[in-house]
Amino acid sequence: MKNCIAIVFVFSLFSCNQQKIDTKAEGEKVMQISKEWSDIASSGDIEKTLNYWAEDAILISAGEGTLNGKNEIRQMVEQSYKIPGFKISWQPISVQVSESGDMAYLLEDSQVSYTDSSGNTMTQYNQAVSIWRKQSDGTWKNVVDISTPGNK
Amino acid sequence: MKNCIAIVFVFSLFSCNQQKIDTKAEGEKVMQISKEWSDIASSGDIEKTLNYWAEDAILISAGEGTLNGKNEIRQMVEQSYKIPGFKISWQPISVQVSESGDMAYLLEDSQVSYTDSSGNTMTQYNQAVSIWRKQSDGTWKNVVDISTPGNK
Repeated sequence: MKNCIAIVFVFSLFSCNQQKIDTKAEGEKVMQISKEWSDIASSGDIEKTLNYWAEDAILISAGEGTLNGKNEIRQMVEQSYKIPGFKISWQPISVQVSESGDMAYLLEDSQVSYTDSSGNTMTQYNQAVSIWRKQSDGTWKNVVDISTPGNK
Repeated sequence: MKNCIAIVFVFSLFSCNQQKIDTKAEGEKVMQISKEWSDIASSGDIEKTLNYWAEDAILISAGEGTLNGKNEIRQMVEQSYKIPGFKISWQPISVQVSESGDMAYLLEDSQVSYTDSSGNTMTQYNQAVSIWRKQSDGTWKNVVDISTPGNK
C-alpha cells in the first residue's frame, strides 16, 4: 500500500502538465510591458519599438486598413517617425488574461502628435485595444492592435 | 499491484480537471455566433441583439467614447435603430481562441447604413475586433467590441 501511495504521488506530479496560472501577475506583467513600450515608442527608437510586435501581428488604425505582419508595420512605423514632430504614447487602462495565460488584452488610451504646417502641435486622441500572445520563450508579444478616434 | 493500477487509473480521472480544449471547434462556434448575431442585428430585433453582450461588455466606436456595460449599450442600440434607414451587419474574418477555451477574439468587417436627408443610403465601412468570454453556462458572450473607420 505504501508503494501504491508513492506511485500515485509520482503519477500526480506528471499527470497534469497544465499548471494553475497566476492570471493577476501575468496581467500586471502585460500592463508593465505596455507602459515600457509606450516609453520606447515615444523616445523614437524604431528597432526597439518593433520588438514588441509578434511576426504575424495585425495593426488596424482609422482609415488605414489592416497592416498584416511586422514588415508592413515596419514600413508604417518608419514613415510615421518621418512626420515632423511625430510622437506617440499610450496608457494601459485595464487588462484581462485567459485562464491558460497564453492570451491577454488591454484597453488603452493613446495620443498621436505632429507639427502642422504653421508649426502648431496637433494631437489626435485615440482609444485602443491590444491583444497579446505569450510566446514559447515566455515573453508576451502584441498580436493585434486596433485604435479608433476618441471623443476628445 | 492490480489494485494499485486501478487506484492510479481512478486518480488520473480526477487529478486534472483541466481538459484539453478543442480550440478549433470553439473558434468555429464563435465565428458562427458572430454570423448569427449579424443576421439578428440587421433584422432590427433589439432584445435579441442585446443578448449577445455580457453584462459588463465594453463597446468602443469612432468618436463615441467608451460604453461601459449593457445598460449604456442598450441606450446606444435603441437610439441607433431610430435613425432613418439604420442597418448594421458584419462578417467575421478570422478567430483565435485561448488554450483554456475561455477567451477568444475575432477580426471583423462591418457596415453601417442610414438614409441621409436627401433620401440617399449612406454606408460607413468599419474594421472591428471583438473579444469573447465563455460564460459559466458554456455560452460565449461578447465582452469587448471596438470598431474603426476602414479605408473604403
